[in-house]
Amino acid sequence: MIAVQSHEHYMQYALELAARGSGCTSPNPLVGSVIVRDGIIVGQGWHARYGHQHAEVNALLNAAQNNSHPDWKADNRHALTTGATLYVTLEPCNHHGLTPPCSQAILDAGIRHVVYALADPNPKAAGGAQWLQSQGVQVTHGVLEQEAMHQNRFFLTFLRTRRPHVIAKSATSLDGRIATRTGDSQWITGPEARARGHELRQAVDAIMVGADTVIADDPALTVRLPESVVAAEAVRHPRPVILDRTGRVPLSAALLDEKRSPRTLIITTDQMDKDHRQTLKARGFDVFSVPPHTDGCGTSPRAVLEILAQQGIQSVLIEGGATVQGVFRDAGLIDEIWCFIAPTLIGGRNAPASFGDLGSDSLGDATTLSDVQLEVTGKDILVRAKVVHRQHEQPPKAGLEQAAVPAPPVFINTRN
Amino acid sequence: MIAVQSHEHYMQYALELAARGSGCTSPNPLVGSVIVRDGIIVGQGWHARYGHQHAEVNALLNAAQNNSHPDWKADNRHALTTGATLYVTLEPCNHHGLTPPCSQAILDAGIRHVVYALADPNPKAAGGAQWLQSQGVQVTHGVLEQEAMHQNRFFLTFLRTRRPHVIAKSATSLDGRIATRTGDSQWITGPEARARGHELRQAVDAIMVGADTVIADDPALTVRLPESVVAAEAVRHPRPVILDRTGRVPLSAALLDEKRSPRTLIITTDQMDKDHRQTLKARGFDVFSVPPHTDGCGTSPRAVLEILAQQGIQSVLIEGGATVQGVFRDAGLIDEIWCFIAPTLIGGRNAPASFGDLGSDSLGDATTLSDVQLEVTGKDILVRAKVVHRQHEQPPKAGLEQAAVPAPPVFINTRN
Repeated sequence: MIAVQSHEHYMQYALELAARGSGCTSPNPLVGSVIVRDGIIVGQGWHARYGHQHAEVNALLNAAQNNSHPDWKADNRHALTTGATLYVTLEPCNHHGLTPPCSQAILDAGIRHVVYALADPNPKAAGGAQWLQSQGVQVTHGVLEQEAMHQNRFFLTFLRTRRPHVIAKSATSLDGRIATRTGDSQWITGPEARARGHELRQAVDAIMVGADTVIADDPALTVRLPESVVAAEAVRHPRPVILDRTGRVPLSAALLDEKRSPRTLIITTDQMDKDHRQTLKARGFDVFSVPPHTDGCGTSPRAVLEILAQQGIQSVLIEGGATVQGVFRDAGLIDEIWCFIAPTLIGGRNAPASFGDLGSDSLGDATTLSDVQLEVTGKDILVRAKVVHRQHEQPPKAGLEQAAVPAPPVFINTRN
Repeated sequence: MIAVQSHEHYMQYALELAARGSGCTSPNPLVGSVIVRDGIIVGQGWHARYGHQHAEVNALLNAAQNNSHPDWKADNRHALTTGATLYVTLEPCNHHGLTPPCSQAILDAGIRHVVYALADPNPKAAGGAQWLQSQGVQVTHGVLEQEAMHQNRFFLTFLRTRRPHVIAKSATSLDGRIATRTGDSQWITGPEARARGHELRQAVDAIMVGADTVIADDPALTVRLPESVVAAEAVRHPRPVILDRTGRVPLSAALLDEKRSPRTLIITTDQMDKDHRQTLKARGFDVFSVPPHTDGCGTSPRAVLEILAQQGIQSVLIEGGATVQGVFRDAGLIDEIWCFIAPTLIGGRNAPASFGDLGSDSLGDATTLSDVQLEVTGKDILVRAKVVHRQHEQPPKAGLEQAAVPAPPVFINTRN
């Protein structure tokens, strides 16, 4: 007897396969695929890295090489896929990108039924399902669609808004402090929570911090995970981004050491000293000028995201400090929250909380969160949530109309 | 066939019965009792109100009146209890207090086996178990002892330390703010969380707030619960306590209306104007002077707890504001935390967080929490936890040695 599982069962496995590409496929989405014949998985694959083969093609290849299966035939590479069902987390592409269209490969392999979770939101690649149907392949869509949307939220936010998906991460005491009044902040949360934070770093394209955080902590912003979680050769460090309006970050900072951190991106304003900028450029760093922020501290958050988008960055993790997080919250430019909460009370009217800068005037203006997920990580609690964007912020574009990236840069003095 | 349940099963039910006295038994503990014969509950009772009969006696009486049971006999009030097992959440008392000793009543009823959770920590009442054993009754103890300790933590803290059990409750956004920068705070959390807060109010002897909270919110501090949770006639409002060092709370405040809030207790210092004090006393309020706090804002927290202990208050809920909570945290005088967290971000460097005043200098000095319990209340999260008291604070007495309640009061000026 063959126990035939539900579509959801195989799609769940395809999502797990897709997750193996986490952090490595951008600007492509994460995709996983499973080929099932008579209730048996005969092939599986995932998109492992940008420029590499798509998940469906990898799954077909895996089936063609599956010589442990009794029905496998050396002279027929489609022996196991003919008449099979192919599960894939994203609609098969229909265009020649870096690789040939998957729709054609699926048809050639004799697949009878394609089940996918999420329609391809990229107009250039879409149409695969329709084309397969026109060729007589049965097509089912929407299986675990919400889960697939969550898995590819960076990709989807970027496609929809043309700016990166922005995640704010904080580590606080139960009374919401990110440090004591004297600035002691290492470590509020325990090793399990910090490891979970490194998993998040591994998944994003960039990590952003403000000048004060670099000055206070001199962070490396690299991914540090045990081999059991991710193989050393598979670790992909997100690109460090420093917001430094006036050029206060010292040249001795770890992030400004071109050997240790060659990909650091510095976003500043014309208030940065020209010699300092020249030194940074001489070290090989990208330095971009944006207008100062007109509604708060630092640099214009919309202009910052525009720069990141131009760099192909689809996801950015704001690790601090409070002012940078507050500036982006105030501007309605945060999409997702990761808040680690330690079982401690720090107290003190002068101990800082997360999300500084101006803040909301009234509770009606406060940021509303949805899809709250609770997780216990060691002794700490992790609260993850989505930000509910208000109607007038949909879609919250990088917003060239509000704060253009000037070329050549124009000095805007917010103090006058 | 009779399904005989475990000791834990019946003790759990006895704990549930005990909880029905919540808020009404102080200064007595909460106690519940179940009598079981041949696997059948033949009697049950709880201590409903201070001065009323004890739980065991109520359970024995319930069994004596249980004429729906086939073995019940009108001419033998011990027909159902002879040879039965009596479960009780606290060791049966052995002394004549307001009621005769339960140990004698248990023996008289022919109970063969007594199972209790927690030994009576009150030396005046203890010894019941030993006496029952000496009379040939089988005695088992320690069943669900931790649960019983938690249920009677107010009583136990008071017995151990001679000061009330102190609970700090806060309602914050996910970024730890109790209000916006403009002071908007009603309501951060939703109706379910607020109802849960009223359940806590119903359980404690007193609610304490600072002058700023009274001035800002003009609260009533009463218990407002639906009839489905607690019958109107069973609602017991905790005693309101105002900390008002200089007498800033206006006489128009709801808590200073002697008709609406006749039991308000005001704790001040000699910095309160004499006429103001006279007016309060003329309205019938208790007004006590304590020294000003020497290590922070307001009144000496140890002296405040000493006053409350003298008033027979075994549990006090600090509802705010941030300064009062911070003062008590800084002094190591908080035992338990209830933190409601709303799925919102308020932001703003000037938006207040809970537990203000001085705060910890270093993370090593931060308050450590244990026994963290997560609960979902409507859209909000409730985090409950115990405070781990440092060794040198054990037992954290009201501390007459540090800050004596002066009689006559002595003016201590902390500004010099």
